[in-house]
Amino acid sequence: MKKYNVAIVGATGAVGEKLIQLLEDSSIAINELHLLASARSAGRKLIFNSQEVTVEETTESAFKGIDIAFFSAGGSITQKFHQAARDSGAIVIDNTSAFRMDPNTPLVVPEVNPEALRDHTYLIANPNCSTIQMVAALKPIEAAFGLDRVIVSTYQAVSGAGLHALEELEEQTKAVLAGEEPKANILPSGGDKKHYPIAFNAIPQIDLFSEDGYTFEEWKMMNETKKIMGLPNLKIAATCVRIPVMSGHSESVYIEVEKDGVTADEIREVLKDAPGIVLQDDPSTQTYPMVITAVDKKDTYVGRIRRDVDNPKGFHLWIVSDNLIKGAAWNSIQIAEKMIEMALV
Amino acid sequence: MKKYNVAIVGATGAVGEKLIQLLEDSSIAINELHLLASARSAGRKLIFNSQEVTVEETTESAFKGIDIAFFSAGGSITQKFHQAARDSGAIVIDNTSAFRMDPNTPLVVPEVNPEALRDHTYLIANPNCSTIQMVAALKPIEAAFGLDRVIVSTYQAVSGAGLHALEELEEQTKAVLAGEEPKANILPSGGDKKHYPIAFNAIPQIDLFSEDGYTFEEWKMMNETKKIMGLPNLKIAATCVRIPVMSGHSESVYIEVEKDGVTADEIREVLKDAPGIVLQDDPSTQTYPMVITAVDKKDTYVGRIRRDVDNPKGFHLWIVSDNLIKGAAWNSIQIAEKMIEMALV
Repeated sequence: MKKYNVAIVGATGAVGEKLIQLLEDSSIAINELHLLASARSAGRKLIFNSQEVTVEETTESAFKGIDIAFFSAGGSITQKFHQAARDSGAIVIDNTSAFRMDPNTPLVVPEVNPEALRDHTYLIANPNCSTIQMVAALKPIEAAFGLDRVIVSTYQAVSGAGLHALEELEEQTKAVLAGEEPKANILPSGGDKKHYPIAFNAIPQIDLFSEDGYTFEEWKMMNETKKIMGLPNLKIAATCVRIPVMSGHSESVYIEVEKDGVTADEIREVLKDAPGIVLQDDPSTQTYPMVITAVDKKDTYVGRIRRDVDNPKGFHLWIVSDNLIKGAAWNSIQIAEKMIEMALV
Repeated sequence: MKKYNVAIVGATGAVGEKLIQLLEDSSIAINELHLLASARSAGRKLIFNSQEVTVEETTESAFKGIDIAFFSAGGSITQKFHQAARDSGAIVIDNTSAFRMDPNTPLVVPEVNPEALRDHTYLIANPNCSTIQMVAALKPIEAAFGLDRVIVSTYQAVSGAGLHALEELEEQTKAVLAGEEPKANILPSGGDKKHYPIAFNAIPQIDLFSEDGYTFEEWKMMNETKKIMGLPNLKIAATCVRIPVMSGHSESVYIEVEKDGVTADEIREVLKDAPGIVLQDDPSTQTYPMVITAVDKKDTYVGRIRRDVDNPKGFHLWIVSDNLIKGAAWNSIQIAEKMIEMALV
């Protein structure tokens, strides 16, 4: 059995931490694990499989001999180092938005479009967290009944903005409870001009605004969903909102299917057996997905499924998953596992 | 100028507190203010206009001489005492759901359907908090361009479930920050079997479930909107979600207007001058409604207005208001003010 040399770029970040932890659960036979980060973090020691691993600086030569390189250190680091990694023969699995919409880069959720992996040029893009859990739930529905339209409003966790944003949520929460003014330096977007507290608030901005009034996070959900599902004409609109949750994104999703006469029970039936999906949908026992139960899990949870009152082809769903796991680290690992299974690496 | 004797039933509750405070701002000339509550709270002293007022027990005889009685102590108290109040000649303005869908009871948001007050039989229903702010924002749009469809996902505050729920949010938040297990005894609904923590969570259940899988909160939004706006055939669907915010409901609202060729700018123009509405919509300065700025205010804030990418008649809006103020106490007071202005009391 082949063993692989694996690198994690951004090993000290929120997603990097999860990658290290989840690689222990994966079927990838690992020969060497290289933990890469900025020069500032080099020398730190992290634990993988009960062994200390020293963090190294990300450099072009750091990819020598690497078979699989997970990138999760921001788009600029991907831009800077992806070519060196690819030139070294590594498959880059990139968790940033740098190449997601590049027509030559597969954008993959393994349960949804694994065949796209065959067209790789040593670079696979991992989709946006809020997109992954939605397409994982919508794919089985689309396969069975067609999909004409999606309207989604998100309830996104703070961990999606990184460990510093999580610390800020904690500090702000303590300040509010102590009757003090919370300080905001990161959210809604580190790169934007104004910052607002997220503690006990809901912020209808994730990432920067594009000129048309949609945010880039909203465009990511709209464009990536079309690309991953292979539905360029899908009607889709997103409103992306940050709420004071640590980890776990929730989504209120309205869909219209193509087929006539579909029932909510038929949608439940299709989701019940879908890979990576857990159906949690029984109002009589107050069973529905929530972040407090979905956090630290690899699956995507779906519930509150009900037919629209006015449109017989319309359905409402509530979709929850851990944004750092299925939404980032675990989906990246699944991409690597699938490529090994398909003999692409 | 006529002076009125006013009673508040449920004076020690979350909405009762706001009623006492906001009556100081109102144009109602008050002769006597009677604060009514359960026997347990009788004898407590509260402050109105810098004067101590002693809480009395709610009894049938407590309404003698009262002109206007605000009820906000739960549906069962309204059921028990509304007739005594009406028989005493008081106008009952009821903040519970007891009579909202009663065809003989006007359900009123004064900016939207003041004329309905003329048909009162000494009982006016104050709508559900999440409904009020939405119809306040949608009415001017509907008046200008027609309204065919509404799909709303809510982000509702904990104060809507009362002062004990707010205390629970605070206790749970402290527990989570201390690494302890949060205790849940109230939410999602005091009357339901299971309780879940709201701290750092999102709960897709408000009120109990009806048999069709929608919650009663969702049905309230759907049915009350049709009644208040006088649009029995409006297509409307709601998903109601509680988030860890103290006060202030946010709503992600998708609408379809009837008229062709409407622009987002035209919708902004109409909202800019609408009564009770504040337009906060400038992505270039990160200006949009948030609960942290809307809390303790009487207005409804609207922003993130943008045309749907696929449907030229579709628009997305983000609507925020203080659920205890415009969503409850202030709307009730505005009903009383409007009735005085219309010489109905």
